[in-house]
Amino acid sequence: MDLSFFSQKITAGLAELRYGAEPETLYEPIRYIMALGGKRIRPLLTLLGAHLFTDDLDAVLRPALATEVFHNFTLLHDDLMDQAPLRRGQQTVHEKWNPNVAILSGDVMLVRAYELFFDVQAELLPTVLRKFSQTAAEVCEGQQWDMNFETETEVSIPQYLDMIRLKTAVLLGFCLELGALLGGAFPADADQLRQFGTKIGLAFQLRDDLLDVYGDAATFGKRVGGDIVADKKTFLLLTAQAQADPDQHAVLTQHIGQPVQDAEAKVRAITAVYDALGVRTQTEELINQYFVQALQHLDQVAGSVERKEPLRRLALQLMERES
Amino acid sequence: MDLSFFSQKITAGLAELRYGAEPETLYEPIRYIMALGGKRIRPLLTLLGAHLFTDDLDAVLRPALATEVFHNFTLLHDDLMDQAPLRRGQQTVHEKWNPNVAILSGDVMLVRAYELFFDVQAELLPTVLRKFSQTAAEVCEGQQWDMNFETETEVSIPQYLDMIRLKTAVLLGFCLELGALLGGAFPADADQLRQFGTKIGLAFQLRDDLLDVYGDAATFGKRVGGDIVADKKTFLLLTAQAQADPDQHAVLTQHIGQPVQDAEAKVRAITAVYDALGVRTQTEELINQYFVQALQHLDQVAGSVERKEPLRRLALQLMERES
Repeated sequence: MDLSFFSQKITAGLAELRYGAEPETLYEPIRYIMALGGKRIRPLLTLLGAHLFTDDLDAVLRPALATEVFHNFTLLHDDLMDQAPLRRGQQTVHEKWNPNVAILSGDVMLVRAYELFFDVQAELLPTVLRKFSQTAAEVCEGQQWDMNFETETEVSIPQYLDMIRLKTAVLLGFCLELGALLGGAFPADADQLRQFGTKIGLAFQLRDDLLDVYGDAATFGKRVGGDIVADKKTFLLLTAQAQADPDQHAVLTQHIGQPVQDAEAKVRAITAVYDALGVRTQTEELINQYFVQALQHLDQVAGSVERKEPLRRLALQLMERES
Repeated sequence: MDLSFFSQKITAGLAELRYGAEPETLYEPIRYIMALGGKRIRPLLTLLGAHLFTDDLDAVLRPALATEVFHNFTLLHDDLMDQAPLRRGQQTVHEKWNPNVAILSGDVMLVRAYELFFDVQAELLPTVLRKFSQTAAEVCEGQQWDMNFETETEVSIPQYLDMIRLKTAVLLGFCLELGALLGGAFPADADQLRQFGTKIGLAFQLRDDLLDVYGDAATFGKRVGGDIVADKKTFLLLTAQAQADPDQHAVLTQHIGQPVQDAEAKVRAITAVYDALGVRTQTEELINQYFVQALQHLDQVAGSVERKEPLRRLALQLMERES
């Protein structure tokens, strides 16, 4: 089965969702952010997780869409907290409307995400909702750690990896577990699939860190080096800080936490330290390590190699993506 | 049964709730706002609604607490949106921490509120969650209307009443319906109880408008006339604007939407217009009208007069409250 088969189901499903009518200032921002697009990875993972165990995806679609609505709720509130002006090249909701609209529209999105689960069969509903709620709280915890790290001087690499696990990876894991459970998988298989998703999520986020520095500006769609300019504590920076010799350390401290005079010079100088320390290779190795671990979990899941193929392909795409 | 019997159950239940440990910046604000106190009206209504139909309140307690956690989530986000410095005489969360902490702690509170429902028996769970979610969305709609009204020149009294219905009353109605359903009521009785709660909620909010102007500063706990100084479009102001003669209209327009030179003079001048138009009496009459309608719904509910007595008493307290 081609990935586009599943993507089309999601696109059609999203087009049919109704969030509410009035007041328009509450519901229009929801339609706006949902229409900005994106790769729809989370509902895709849910459908692919279900498809390992069933051909009947109809009952899985709304819960799959719930994960996308939830993800966009987190983007909406995160963009406000990060004061980001743009999302997918368009104005963010708090910029296009105002911060209060962003807060309240986001709140309703979280409610709407929950609502998309309520058709789940009665035996599974409490389990699914408990797992979703735990994941939702963990995503908030990850965002809070991320914000805390901005003002902390000492962030360890394990702390950083735990932050991206919470902020990004657990939701991908949940999406797969959700699909598996709704598709009729045994809990043990659903759990292996969740671990597959979490590892893919970690690799996915590290790939994001890597692309910020080593991506191609044209395909990446953001300014290369944005994390460097903003002093963002990424895996690359934390690795460099942990391994820098005194000279390299001097370069890092010369630029980090200082007013930016020349952004390009800053990106060049810090990238040179990364290059000298082999940070790129180290990051790629960790990404690969997570990828291999992910595939080991996928191997543990009951089911034919053919059924697993779209998931394997999607995982590979996420690893090799350039944007 | 004395009201304090139910209040004690709620206090004990709230004390046992655990919201999460780390990061502390995420969970400490939740414990903080939940500890600020308040009348705990919503869980009280839930328990009293259940008590009409059952003596076994154990299974009702956690869903009852969910309504209080949800209510405090709305206070947390509303205080941020309204830039309120104080809540129950203490610093608001965005003041004590910062706006981002308020956004994210609030988000987790909404998740935690949902979680408190998941032990509800399987046959009722989808119904309860659907009704809760609809109510939650309506509360957000009410808050958005309230914010919209700040910048709108023409707000009609029906629009205002619909706003307070959404922002305040529907949640009280839901709390009673929830209790009734969990207590084993027939849906028709649960619905009558919901309508009782909604009418009480409307009366409750109008009482709030009234207390702002005609309350006793010492018992009210807020500065009398705060709504007047802030040009808040309350039922009192909208009624006065609708009924003012040209001279009175001139007094209103002289003060409203203008920089405040002398707050006390403004409160005196506008209160004088209210007095001349009998706005106080008109508001009290509408409150009474809702109260009478509420009691008619309560009469329709199956059950003994004795069982209904605590509810009737609580409703009366809410009508006669001075703070």
